[in-house]
Amino acid sequence: MKALVFDGTLHVDEAPMPEPAPGEALLRVLTAGVCNTDIEIRRGYMNYQGILGHEFVGIVEQASNSYLMGKRVVGEINCVCGLCQYCKMEMPNHCEDRTVLGILNRPGAFAEYVSLPETNLHLVPNAIRDDVAVFTEPLAAAFRITEQVLIDPDDRIIVLGDGKLGQLIAQALSLYSKHVLCVGKHPWKCDLLRSRKIATALQGDEIEGGAAVVVEATGSPHGLQQALTLVRPEGAVILKSTCADTLQLQSQLAVVNEVRVLGSRCGPFRPALEALALGTVDVRPLISESFPLDDGPAAITRAEDPDVMKVLLHISC
Amino acid sequence: MKALVFDGTLHVDEAPMPEPAPGEALLRVLTAGVCNTDIEIRRGYMNYQGILGHEFVGIVEQASNSYLMGKRVVGEINCVCGLCQYCKMEMPNHCEDRTVLGILNRPGAFAEYVSLPETNLHLVPNAIRDDVAVFTEPLAAAFRITEQVLIDPDDRIIVLGDGKLGQLIAQALSLYSKHVLCVGKHPWKCDLLRSRKIATALQGDEIEGGAAVVVEATGSPHGLQQALTLVRPEGAVILKSTCADTLQLQSQLAVVNEVRVLGSRCGPFRPALEALALGTVDVRPLISESFPLDDGPAAITRAEDPDVMKVLLHISC
Repeated sequence: MKALVFDGTLHVDEAPMPEPAPGEALLRVLTAGVCNTDIEIRRGYMNYQGILGHEFVGIVEQASNSYLMGKRVVGEINCVCGLCQYCKMEMPNHCEDRTVLGILNRPGAFAEYVSLPETNLHLVPNAIRDDVAVFTEPLAAAFRITEQVLIDPDDRIIVLGDGKLGQLIAQALSLYSKHVLCVGKHPWKCDLLRSRKIATALQGDEIEGGAAVVVEATGSPHGLQQALTLVRPEGAVILKSTCADTLQLQSQLAVVNEVRVLGSRCGPFRPALEALALGTVDVRPLISESFPLDDGPAAITRAEDPDVMKVLLHISC
Repeated sequence: MKALVFDGTLHVDEAPMPEPAPGEALLRVLTAGVCNTDIEIRRGYMNYQGILGHEFVGIVEQASNSYLMGKRVVGEINCVCGLCQYCKMEMPNHCEDRTVLGILNRPGAFAEYVSLPETNLHLVPNAIRDDVAVFTEPLAAAFRITEQVLIDPDDRIIVLGDGKLGQLIAQALSLYSKHVLCVGKHPWKCDLLRSRKIATALQGDEIEGGAAVVVEATGSPHGLQQALTLVRPEGAVILKSTCADTLQLQSQLAVVNEVRVLGSRCGPFRPALEALALGTVDVRPLISESFPLDDGPAAITRAEDPDVMKVLLHISC
């Protein structure tokens, strides 16, 4: 089968068909999405080499659970042992022996076929188009925040960053609070949010501090410092950018104000699928361009351009 | 009255008697303790100038509540407005208009007399000696951690730092978990903890990671980095050192492991007084030396020496 492989350089190549392990399904990939993590991997993040890609929608071609056969599915990316201390503590996403689709010891979804444990799969409602369904995984990561902090409808929330992830977070948290402000760098990206009735500001504008929650989704090492000045005492700063940077944490500010700084990674698929099916989160304006798998390297390069949002790979129909 | 004043230099001087505001009591100070925060203030922390000192025990000499008259008391150090948004949100220690004893806009307790709101005062049980009672405030700060994270008796807890605060934290958290390990730099300080049946290790020893809670109480800007390598996924790193440093936070480690980094400051006096009265926390071995108020500058200088633990000021009887 064809696949987009990173092994120091990025290229489309013939790769062996996945051989699903017991309990795993074989999926034919329909559409996949490029994430900033793919871009970071190309720069050395996680030292991953292999088939890239972890945002996808596909059709089940082979499964031990016959109900799944032929179904359109999305898949959780952490594949876990179920036996280690963290699995037993009900934190499977932190499994000590996990593999992670296209990120850690498991070939990714920028390929004609991919395998995943059947327990990782979620059926996609008919109301969700393929190019919308690929947003399930990053939108789930946005909903992860609602599992980590309790959000009151009157809480003021500031999202730093108007990129792909910042947009999804701002939309997701707007379902929980009436007072979400997204701080961006690009007027046209902020416009997308304002069309969803979400308030925006541009970096450099005067921004009122004292927010209950500040989400750092800029991908910049300076975001945390700004977040600490904007969050209220005992408030939460959520770190969402996965990058290789070292951040600066002003001890005095964090300790005196008793701020909580929370790392945040993968999240729950169910509320993400529900929001996409009902349209309470609208991802369609975030789709900038799509490429065939053969043009995978060009797609990744295009996704690095700050002038584009989500880049998709159309792999099969 | 006599007082230990910091105004760029440190000196004992005549200062005006406190004039208690309505609702405030006038206290005659018996004994006071030197905290690392006093040392940091001398180095510029908080830009505070005035009478130093916030750990003390005293006798109520004047109060509108006649029940308090003549009683031996300790006092919470945050003096609050009761009206601002944070007071209304039941976070009075984060009052926007607060003064803080000997730290922020309020003369401290290294003086013959001090005033504090009557609502800040706690009676000291007879079982607690004066030189033990001065530990109530820092021990309360240790118990603050138990308000911020839920500690299970089987949780492994690592305290980084064997200084005054690290010792109090290790003892306090040992009341909640059977598995507290304190990592220190000084064998004789670790011996104090082992005599309380608390496990210790020396910096440089191999330390098993995966702790549910790691408390950073080293006062060193490198403590946070070590804490992040020792905490388990979704575990908590508690920042206890109030210093002017900027800390390094490795984004990848914090985000991928979804670590919670929590600033932690002042805490509840009640469990601290209970532990001191019952002897479940023993602070007596931590008392290194005591000085008269006249020798206040020498006391502060002595407290900076890593070979001493708590330095006290005996002010009156």
